[in-house]
Amino acid sequence: MIRILGLDPGLTHTGWGLIEAARGRLVHVANGAISTKADTPLAERLSAIYRGLDALIMELRPDEAAVEHTYVNKNPAAALKLGQARGVVLLAPAMAGLVVAEYQAMEVKRAVVGTGHADKIQVQDMVKRLLPGARLARADAADALAIAICHAHHRESRAVLAKAMAQA
Amino acid sequence: MIRILGLDPGLTHTGWGLIEAARGRLVHVANGAISTKADTPLAERLSAIYRGLDALIMELRPDEAAVEHTYVNKNPAAALKLGQARGVVLLAPAMAGLVVAEYQAMEVKRAVVGTGHADKIQVQDMVKRLLPGARLARADAADALAIAICHAHHRESRAVLAKAMAQA
Repeated sequence: MIRILGLDPGLTHTGWGLIEAARGRLVHVANGAISTKADTPLAERLSAIYRGLDALIMELRPDEAAVEHTYVNKNPAAALKLGQARGVVLLAPAMAGLVVAEYQAMEVKRAVVGTGHADKIQVQDMVKRLLPGARLARADAADALAIAICHAHHRESRAVLAKAMAQA
Repeated sequence: MIRILGLDPGLTHTGWGLIEAARGRLVHVANGAISTKADTPLAERLSAIYRGLDALIMELRPDEAAVEHTYVNKNPAAALKLGQARGVVLLAPAMAGLVVAEYQAMEVKRAVVGTGHADKIQVQDMVKRLLPGARLARADAADALAIAICHAHHRESRAVLAKAMAQA
């Protein structure tokens, strides 16, 4: 059994979701978002995200973390802003000694829905089906759970492949 | 007397420079850069920058920090990458309890050279003149010292203004 923390970075809302994965079986543990206010100085907003994630990691004790590789077809100013939040979101689990995996948005959609061209609503519906009983705090939290599910699938595939290669 | 840490964020090289400022007089203390390798996972590079800055702050004990407000007329992918480093560079002094000031590139040039349209070489030459005896580790470190000088000037202006207003 492994506990995976999925993270969806954002300066205003950083979604998080924790699942347990064991031999293809997934169980929802918790999800939520860390929010900061736009009128707060940037360094303080980043500190709030870092402290929030650090407290979460201490409390929930994940084994690994996964972060979506952010889509950057935005204007440079928006990309810079998102990058600042993303840097802190990658940093927090790394400083806690966790492996931090990164996945492209298309990989996440493919792992959860089965196609890389699924929309947000389809992803959220599948997250609810794959994690029955999970109450989704926000859309960002659903995305974070989707990232955690993607990581669980990729870990499993790698394990199956490694086993097959060891037996070959 | 106040110790100011100037920071010039970059994923590959983050320049830093520490000065002491007292009533318009500036003294160079130290400068350098924290470098990370491109073939290292992103979360590890960000951790290296954070740990490096944290160790610097513990050793050099600055009172305040200043970071350039990065120019973002780049492609979104480059802006995202720079943003990730910048988020961590803003975070480290904030987590250490320092005030973190931000300045536009033009403000830094105006404070150091006298015009917002100065080029990199002019800025470096003026940094050497304003901080005699300073050996500049790298261009990034010179930029970091320029940012620290800019912050020293702005603090001083604010102090003069506050005094004038108190007497009015």
